Amino acid sequence: MSIRMDQLSWVEYERRVREESPVVFLPCGATEQHGPHLPLGTDALLASALCEEVAAQVGGLVAPALSYGYKSQPKCGGGNHFCGTTSLDGQTLIALVRDAVREFARHGVTRLVLVDGHYENQWFVTEGIELAMRDLGPATRLEVMRLEHWDFCTEQTLAEVFPDGFPGFALEHAALIETSLMLHYLPHLVRLELIPDDAPADFPPYDMYPSRTAWVPPSGVLSSARGSTAQKGARMARDIGQGIAAAVRKEFGL
Amino acid sequence: MSIRMDQLSWVEYERRVREESPVVFLPCGATEQHGPHLPLGTDALLASALCEEVAAQVGGLVAPALSYGYKSQPKCGGGNHFCGTTSLDGQTLIALVRDAVREFARHGVTRLVLVDGHYENQWFVTEGIELAMRDLGPATRLEVMRLEHWDFCTEQTLAEVFPDGFPGFALEHAALIETSLMLHYLPHLVRLELIPDDAPADFPPYDMYPSRTAWVPPSGVLSSARGSTAQKGARMARDIGQGIAAAVRKEFGL
Amino acid sequence: MSIRMDQLSWVEYERRVREESPVVFLPCGATEQHGPHLPLGTDALLASALCEEVAAQVGGLVAPALSYGYKSQPKCGGGNHFCGTTSLDGQTLIALVRDAVREFARHGVTRLVLVDGHYENQWFVTEGIELAMRDLGPATRLEVMRLEHWDFCTEQTLAEVFPDGFPGFALEHAALIETSLMLHYLPHLVRLELIPDDAPADFPPYDMYPSRTAWVPPSGVLSSARGSTAQKGARMARDIGQGIAAAVRKEFGL
Amino acid sequence: MSIRMDQLSWVEYERRVREESPVVFLPCGATEQHGPHLPLGTDALLASALCEEVAAQVGGLVAPALSYGYKSQPKCGGGNHFCGTTSLDGQTLIALVRDAVREFARHGVTRLVLVDGHYENQWFVTEGIELAMRDLGPATRLEVMRLEHWDFCTEQTLAEVFPDGFPGFALEHAALIETSLMLHYLPHLVRLELIPDDAPADFPPYDMYPSRTAWVPPSGVLSSARGSTAQKGARMARDIGQGIAAAVRKEFGL
Amino acid sequence: MSIRMDQLSWVEYERRVREESPVVFLPCGATEQHGPHLPLGTDALLASALCEEVAAQVGGLVAPALSYGYKSQPKCGGGNHFCGTTSLDGQTLIALVRDAVREFARHGVTRLVLVDGHYENQWFVTEGIELAMRDLGPATRLEVMRLEHWDFCTEQTLAEVFPDGFPGFALEHAALIETSLMLHYLPHLVRLELIPDDAPADFPPYDMYPSRTAWVPPSGVLSSARGSTAQKGARMARDIGQGIAAAVRKEFGL
Amino acid sequence: MSIRMDQLSWVEYERRVREESPVVFLPCGATEQHGPHLPLGTDALLASALCEEVAAQVGGLVAPALSYGYKSQPKCGGGNHFCGTTSLDGQTLIALVRDAVREFARHGVTRLVLVDGHYENQWFVTEGIELAMRDLGPATRLEVMRLEHWDFCTEQTLAEVFPDGFPGFALEHAALIETSLMLHYLPHLVRLELIPDDAPADFPPYDMYPSRTAWVPPSGVLSSARGSTAQKGARMARDIGQGIAAAVRKEFGL
Repeated sequence: MSIRMDQLSWVEYERRVREESPVVFLPCGATEQHGPHLPLGTDALLASALCEEVAAQVGGLVAPALSYGYKSQPKCGGGNHFCGTTSLDGQTLIALVRDAVREFARHGVTRLVLVDGHYENQWFVTEGIELAMRDLGPATRLEVMRLEHWDFCTEQTLAEVFPDGFPGFALEHAALIETSLMLHYLPHLVRLELIPDDAPADFPPYDMYPSRTAWVPPSGVLSSARGSTAQKGARMARDIGQGIAAAVRKEFGL
Repeated sequence: MSIRMDQLSWVEYERRVREESPVVFLPCGATEQHGPHLPLGTDALLASALCEEVAAQVGGLVAPALSYGYKSQPKCGGGNHFCGTTSLDGQTLIALVRDAVREFARHGVTRLVLVDGHYENQWFVTEGIELAMRDLGPATRLEVMRLEHWDFCTEQTLAEVFPDGFPGFALEHAALIETSLMLHYLPHLVRLELIPDDAPADFPPYDMYPSRTAWVPPSGVLSSARGSTAQKGARMARDIGQGIAAAVRKEFGL
Repeated sequence: MSIRMDQLSWVEYERRVREESPVVFLPCGATEQHGPHLPLGTDALLASALCEEVAAQVGGLVAPALSYGYKSQPKCGGGNHFCGTTSLDGQTLIALVRDAVREFARHGVTRLVLVDGHYENQWFVTEGIELAMRDLGPATRLEVMRLEHWDFCTEQTLAEVFPDGFPGFALEHAALIETSLMLHYLPHLVRLELIPDDAPADFPPYDMYPSRTAWVPPSGVLSSARGSTAQKGARMARDIGQGIAAAVRKEFGL
Repeated sequence: MSIRMDQLSWVEYERRVREESPVVFLPCGATEQHGPHLPLGTDALLASALCEEVAAQVGGLVAPALSYGYKSQPKCGGGNHFCGTTSLDGQTLIALVRDAVREFARHGVTRLVLVDGHYENQWFVTEGIELAMRDLGPATRLEVMRLEHWDFCTEQTLAEVFPDGFPGFALEHAALIETSLMLHYLPHLVRLELIPDDAPADFPPYDMYPSRTAWVPPSGVLSSARGSTAQKGARMARDIGQGIAAAVRKEFGL
Repeated sequence: MSIRMDQLSWVEYERRVREESPVVFLPCGATEQHGPHLPLGTDALLASALCEEVAAQVGGLVAPALSYGYKSQPKCGGGNHFCGTTSLDGQTLIALVRDAVREFARHGVTRLVLVDGHYENQWFVTEGIELAMRDLGPATRLEVMRLEHWDFCTEQTLAEVFPDGFPGFALEHAALIETSLMLHYLPHLVRLELIPDDAPADFPPYDMYPSRTAWVPPSGVLSSARGSTAQKGARMARDIGQGIAAAVRKEFGL
Repeated sequence: MSIRMDQLSWVEYERRVREESPVVFLPCGATEQHGPHLPLGTDALLASALCEEVAAQVGGLVAPALSYGYKSQPKCGGGNHFCGTTSLDGQTLIALVRDAVREFARHGVTRLVLVDGHYENQWFVTEGIELAMRDLGPATRLEVMRLEHWDFCTEQTLAEVFPDGFPGFALEHAALIETSLMLHYLPHLVRLELIPDDAPADFPPYDMYPSRTAWVPPSGVLSSARGSTAQKGARMARDIGQGIAAAVRKEFGL
């Protein structure tokens, strides 16, 4: 039986929720430029793939991804001026998350994990959960985990994948981690030959509005994607998958 | 090259938008009970499939679907009390559509089609477009088409598919049209053996709140899905695909 | 004693609510073009008149009408480009209905009927009720009925009033039904001599934004009002009045 | 021809707006307890009556009243705990006014007067106008006047009507001014025999939440309505009518 | 130990809230022109100073002031066209107050006083409290007092301070009361030599939008500040301080 | 003359804005637990002190701080369950920032710097600026810088201040950086003797809702504040002050 909620009938879904209290995973993505070599859907595609991997490990279900996310910012996503980047206002994303969380609680779901694949989403997803929990009140049985998937890469893996030093997750936009993960999960959507030669972005410790688009490499790639391999992607996917699964087991008492 | 926007890089997408002014299709679905024989994602899956079909005909692109829709109502979707139905507040859906439409306009898209696959979405999608157009102002080059896909079934087809008389689109929830279309597009997600024997729902000309759940067949199927076939689905899909393609060509001058 | 809430003192109103649990009717109208022969207030005026008629039958009360409604759409109201049409954003109407329903619940009203006289209002009125019911919580004693009044015309009446076939309620804007009802209730506001000769509107199965105003007859009348008579209006008013009264008695156990 | 906008066809309304630039009056009322002797609709009824009187003098039009207003407060309306008082959230009233003002501007109206008959509405009506004017931008030709009608009673009239000293407008809820005006305009809705003997309310210079309902006379009448006469009402109506008409002529250059 | 909440640690604050149920004062100010002789922060500075004075008398605490307020209006604050006046939308101020009140309730505060120093804030502060109280529900132990501080000047003081007659609080913007209070509390921020010679403003009984800025003296001072002295300020501060303290003791049973 | 906007008259402020185009600094703080040794106002107090320092260097002005911020989170502020922490909903903070930015633009300010002193504020401040810039439109002359002040500590300073390794800014809540900065700026508000002995918090790479309060040291101090000195504070203040001043000069062409 499918682990994708959208492929289950309500009868199957209800039975599983009632009998098994499965962990439900909600991938939070974006439609955002990811350089010339990765597709616009990268964040939602990766978050969904990782959710399916973990759900398979812990007997969970994966809800349909949120395919649009908060406005891309220059220093972590290249900025919202790129063509193709399709972003929501903060309040819209907050409401979307709030509504979804409330509905899973109504279903009787008690274990919900929001897996964020788009750096800019973090605080609006957080506020959406906060508002839903307030609406549900202290008596709710629902517990929610929220995470950015890349935070589960182990230090050892990062040290090996970045032998010259890890540039930090913010700059890892359309760069080595995402490209390797895509090569692992969805290689047909990666065009390695188009990885640009742009030097890594070098951002100051502040933001400017209107965006200083000149700060961002024209390709939209914030640090080098060169050296990306499916093997590195597999290693990181294993880290992330095992890490989230372990976290889920620990926190939800599985 | 893919017609799915989420599989294109921003470079490819931008090139196409600038050079070809393609029609962009945005499927508007839901996560909603569709009886024991159809999956929760039916509305988004069908709207996406139809968008891809039409996009292929007119050289268009398909944006990621809106996978969550407005609250299911008893008389057209069985009601929002079903487990698995995962709905948004009206204001959330309005904002989601408004934001997306504004972003496509920013990209330079001039031809946008919102293909609704969830009856309850209609007016909130409309308001989202209205608000976006007001924000964009009278100088915008964007034109938006909005439609429910089933409205493109021809009368002749309906007459043949429903030899005993067409019960109307509202009752066609998880019933013959949707089941046949799913058999045509995604037969592995249909479980014909589970089609219920419920008599068709018989609703009065008013709604009650709190919902009178007793009005709704326990299965969530509002009229019979018996007699659904992939052939009928193919026929209706052809009607719809050709109809939308013709409308698009006419209105957008292709 | 008056059945109009705005003509009662709070002392009278409170006594009736406490002692009689009367059905309270809230007419939901609009300020919208209705052709050259009907006034801008037609929707609120008719909804109010019908509410008063039903209230008289079932011992109910009529609250002040919502005189402004959701944006007129070309295919059911001629569109929002007409001078005089004075419309609300969706969110405004939702909030207006939500607030009013919550207040009636606070009064102790347990039986509330929202009688919609403006096609475009339907889903925003629905959402307003949904939000109010959520706020009131499952323990509320309030039950709400929502309806569009024209849906209570019987098939037999429609067959006789439209001997050449009924064009459907959406096209019935400023047309035979509304004109006849106005001739029945408020004949001094109808100027029969100004009924236009426009051919009926012929709309495609989709909407366009910005509105294709050329689709709409310049008069704003979507199908012919010719043949409207007070007699036909009386017949339909009787259908509607009796139908709503019967529904109210059935659902509220009167 | 009627001066009530809801009784005009759009054709008549448009002609007048285009040819005459009439002043459009929008009465802002409430549904609120007004003691045992005045009806719940007093604020909207009086504001509408006064608007019609002024419109007749200056060749204006009267739009449908806003029949629901902001939450009644103890010190000016008795408080929102009374049965029958039916109030809106501040944001709802703001949005309602904003939407209406924007629409009148779209019609081509250049002279709009919001006549407030409910003390508590003032600042939310103001904000609604402020938001509309911001949306319309500096190029708009629309000018808006906003007023509370009682402020046009002359000092001389007040001195004669209140020989023992004027208690101030806030306490004038369901009291001598409103009762006399109702006796002038709508005497059949006044029940003089039910005017209560409550002593005038004596409020401290602060508010408490939850409301100290004990501060408010049980009748809801904040100061005495005894001595109300149609003659006094006529005198005040004349003051108000002439005062508003003069203001309108002065400000709008008529 | 400080009476300023922002100078206490959470441990000290919690101990006091739990052991003493202190009255918490929330000053509500603005950033608004106050003529050439008073600073932009006058409203927040005075409200804070008065709160500290009363808190010292009743053993209370003073929360950080709301430093931005609702849009200045010509007739009570000179209007929002002045440079330096920095105003919030109504909905923003409502939400700010609502959130703060809810949080104090969560802390266990049972006695909260909102001291408003900006005339235009009144109704939005009221609505913020109303919304918070609704969210907190009828079981809350929180009681909230709301006031404008100037309303506690006694009639005797006003008679002596304004021997030629009191022009009313609305006109008292940047005028004798505020200037004298500032001379009492913060004399180094007053530049008496810059008090303008403008004649007092003479406003009609209505407002116009866009604002008729010509109605307002160019200085922004609505009535004369001449004659302001620290002594008068001290007298009024004593009135206000004692008045609020007495009100607090009476209503909160101290 | 003061550099604090709230201490300037509008005349002085206007003159400076028109003649000097000064950089306006808006401190964004919070009211949030900062352990037993630092006051609740730490974030706003530090942000304000740093703004004043930089403003003095670059001839700027400091607007009144936003004294309330977004909900404290366990991993960077201890969580919102602490008594005294007084937080805003995300939408409230977004609106507050949006309104303020729009008003500074109206004043003619062209150089605005939002100095954030509360980690949780970041994305809501960002969205507030984004919304304001969209409202202002592409023609605005306003440029906005946004920053968290601690990001201007140089690596060399961090290496010396944290000889055992820098734990990261998120854990630096009520810890060495903030305590040292407070010892530098406002030593009378620091109670060094109360610095707790809690071990540093050790958070997993995910969040849980409802908050796992057991993750947070009972004191609310996330890593050790021991070793804090005014000297270290002075050093970091110098870094930050010089860093921001340099950034401001570079970006605003001073």
